[in-house]
Amino acid sequence: VIQMTYTLNPIGHVARTESTAKIVVDPEFRQGLVHLNEFSHAIILWWIHERDNPGDRHRLLANPPRGKGTEPSGVFACRSPFRPNPIGHSVVGLVSVDTAQGLVVLDQIDARDGTPVLDIKPYLPSSDKVDDVEVAPWFANLERRYSD
Amino acid sequence: VIQMTYTLNPIGHVARTESTAKIVVDPEFRQGLVHLNEFSHAIILWWIHERDNPGDRHRLLANPPRGKGTEPSGVFACRSPFRPNPIGHSVVGLVSVDTAQGLVVLDQIDARDGTPVLDIKPYLPSSDKVDDVEVAPWFANLERRYSD
Repeated sequence: VIQMTYTLNPIGHVARTESTAKIVVDPEFRQGLVHLNEFSHAIILWWIHERDNPGDRHRLLANPPRGKGTEPSGVFACRSPFRPNPIGHSVVGLVSVDTAQGLVVLDQIDARDGTPVLDIKPYLPSSDKVDDVEVAPWFANLERRYSD
Repeated sequence: VIQMTYTLNPIGHVARTESTAKIVVDPEFRQGLVHLNEFSHAIILWWIHERDNPGDRHRLLANPPRGKGTEPSGVFACRSPFRPNPIGHSVVGLVSVDTAQGLVVLDQIDARDGTPVLDIKPYLPSSDKVDDVEVAPWFANLERRYSD
């Protein structure tokens, strides 16, 4: 078995306080932000660096964060930070984009200060929004962050 | 400047024909699929292996796929396969999950046969569904894949 390995380099990092959240994009990647200000929401992919170690990356079962009285789920059936490839995925609201300064101000993000950012993608209803969704019972009562 | 590097290993690959699409998960990761069958949709992160080369990874401007008469966008403002970290993101419908065989049958995926798969996450309306979205004009008329 040949084990392929791919490499990632962060494009910037999360900078946050208790009440503010932004992404600081490194100078060499700032041109990639051109026209991001045309979008209201984005998908942020980030590196769950605190879980980037062999032990955590080999865990395949986790307790769903808000699961009560349920047996463990596979990591591909929940949003546990323990994953073979610890890539975090957050849908966020865009407050402002400053391409020259590399600053993307967000309404929130569930990643800590200093978290490496891997990618920013505009949120597109055409591919990313699903009307009719079924989830496991232990996720059914979660409140939606971005509902009318 | 210290350039951090993170490593990824695929958990499986896309297997598809013209009319079928599935993910084949490698044996050592199959336990991670437990309870995925409780969900109707998932987010698939995959490696855009055909664009994993220094030239493509340094491109920061791209023509939005369906943009007509628009100037180039930053890669963080469109879904171009040219990205510093070429991670593909697809929201898919789950048709069936066979944990023992490591088979996840999908309704579709916009990735080629043989594409390395990095992660599978259940689609959660609580965090992933946004009602009120604004997009750049050149994306405004795209038809939604999963609308009522």
